[in-house]
Amino acid sequence: MIKKVGENTIKFTLPPKIMSGYAIVGPKEGLSPLAKYFDYILKDDAFNEKTYERAERKMLEQAICGAIDKANLLSTDIDILLSGDLLNQIISATFSARQIQTSFIGVFGACSTMTLSLALGSCLIDGGCANKVACATSSHFSTAERQFRYPLELGCQRPPTSQWTVTGAGCSILSREGKGHRITHATFGKVIDFGIKDMNNMGAAMAPAAADTLKNLFNDTNTKPQDYDLIVTGDLGKLGSELLVDLLENYGFKLGSNYCDCGQMMFSNKQRSFMGGSGCGCSATVMNSYILNKLDSGDYKKIILMSTGALLSTTSAQQGDTIPGIAHAVIVEKGK
Amino acid sequence: MIKKVGENTIKFTLPPKIMSGYAIVGPKEGLSPLAKYFDYILKDDAFNEKTYERAERKMLEQAICGAIDKANLLSTDIDILLSGDLLNQIISATFSARQIQTSFIGVFGACSTMTLSLALGSCLIDGGCANKVACATSSHFSTAERQFRYPLELGCQRPPTSQWTVTGAGCSILSREGKGHRITHATFGKVIDFGIKDMNNMGAAMAPAAADTLKNLFNDTNTKPQDYDLIVTGDLGKLGSELLVDLLENYGFKLGSNYCDCGQMMFSNKQRSFMGGSGCGCSATVMNSYILNKLDSGDYKKIILMSTGALLSTTSAQQGDTIPGIAHAVIVEKGK
Repeated sequence: MIKKVGENTIKFTLPPKIMSGYAIVGPKEGLSPLAKYFDYILKDDAFNEKTYERAERKMLEQAICGAIDKANLLSTDIDILLSGDLLNQIISATFSARQIQTSFIGVFGACSTMTLSLALGSCLIDGGCANKVACATSSHFSTAERQFRYPLELGCQRPPTSQWTVTGAGCSILSREGKGHRITHATFGKVIDFGIKDMNNMGAAMAPAAADTLKNLFNDTNTKPQDYDLIVTGDLGKLGSELLVDLLENYGFKLGSNYCDCGQMMFSNKQRSFMGGSGCGCSATVMNSYILNKLDSGDYKKIILMSTGALLSTTSAQQGDTIPGIAHAVIVEKGK
Repeated sequence: MIKKVGENTIKFTLPPKIMSGYAIVGPKEGLSPLAKYFDYILKDDAFNEKTYERAERKMLEQAICGAIDKANLLSTDIDILLSGDLLNQIISATFSARQIQTSFIGVFGACSTMTLSLALGSCLIDGGCANKVACATSSHFSTAERQFRYPLELGCQRPPTSQWTVTGAGCSILSREGKGHRITHATFGKVIDFGIKDMNNMGAAMAPAAADTLKNLFNDTNTKPQDYDLIVTGDLGKLGSELLVDLLENYGFKLGSNYCDCGQMMFSNKQRSFMGGSGCGCSATVMNSYILNKLDSGDYKKIILMSTGALLSTTSAQQGDTIPGIAHAVIVEKGK
């Protein structure tokens, strides 16, 4: 049986359950308005490691093990670990996977990795290829900054359109059986390029892809924005979110007060992060703490989570290429 | 129904068919003993582009479009494109995906990408999440060399354990219906780290992961090496292949004359590539040309293809980390 509805959306026959979620964040994120929802807040973003890369890896390992633990499972119960991150050759994910000796599928979707892994994990479970899947991702301000932009020691001034890479890692455990909030649909995005070249304006680069995926999801499922308690994007930030609202209006869909962005939710205005948070860890930590909590409490019954990714490397940027974007979305319904 | 057999292998209920394969290679690979099987051989490895990165991207685009064409399909018939490559943030795959406006799933498995995408594509098709999937990957000697090692202009001497990154791209089109060779099983590998640190000895870094995946496949499917007409690894090269044979013997499996390695098949001894070819493009081009051809002709009836990946980045290497490896395998049977 083919589970596709419309052009781009998959409707799961036996919606996978989210057994647990775990979110670990850095000290700046520990001052976030969402702080009380996080499982663990680092006192020091080096996490007692020699390098920030190793700190990121350690956060990701803790997120994966923490989520497995919260689901009352052992790592041997996990059939497949789906993970990726922003670092070259996704070293946070691959090195973390050494510690979880299970089948590993490396994914790359830049900051869209949380929903990419949730969508793919749901396909694997619903398709009968796995019973339990761990979906995890991470980012770290200091590893991203020095890889993509400038050495931290330079103290470069940040332009007003810039976003702040979230230091954090999140993991969800999906299961074929049991209880939990259900992933009912997944929409895999297309790579969309509107010609943005500014590495300090990721929101604008990702908004067209976000609009495309959301439009497809609404059309494929024959729903509209008002049918959801929450529509939340990954890290479009303030500017990108405004662009998304405009672009979607052109497609005939009006986002209302039920729309928000993890990047904007992560930091308060006082935290001087300009357009808001970004990075794989942004939607990963907000999803696996605040959003799951609000589904637990019944404040949300049906939501769309759509993480968004800017697909660039320093090489592509230096060679004058534009920044393509991508967005993957899942619909999550409160468990019974 | 759960399709897992044993600990790590998935047995497909309705084995996906390989509708077509396309392989494009660079000029050095055009002198390979396998040259006559390739679909397209570049005269110049810059492929009329300004940068090698753009040349790699163009090869990948041609491989994807070529495979779609050979399957008598249009790109709009493809539900999902699964692709990844060696470059930072898999820019070859993501930029190529702009041209194929379909759902895109970015994967990363270093040189194991061909079987990672074939295995994952098979799961998506067998699970009813897609009708037609394109699985594609690429590598380019000049982009890999300057990203992972030294600027080409330095003319560094290569150590005898080194391998030569294949300039090439390959794509397979998988389908739920129709005819073609069938992917009957997939074994996703674990990340295995035996502590190798030498970036010029990838074969040794990958061999333990290859042995682990192959052992799991044999145990899970209750088969032995003699049950296959061909067991072919991705790019272990001469040294890595010898290590694999030794390691598997410890596990109780004896690889015979039906075992070979795409890296060793790609170049003749005269071509001075030391341990042989490597890179995502290595197994991708050999699979989508020579191996499919031998399945067509009936020389092979049942094979194991297992691409292997070394999971390092320049950052992890410079920080003194070891090189973890991974290997993903698929069993392919001749179509009826």
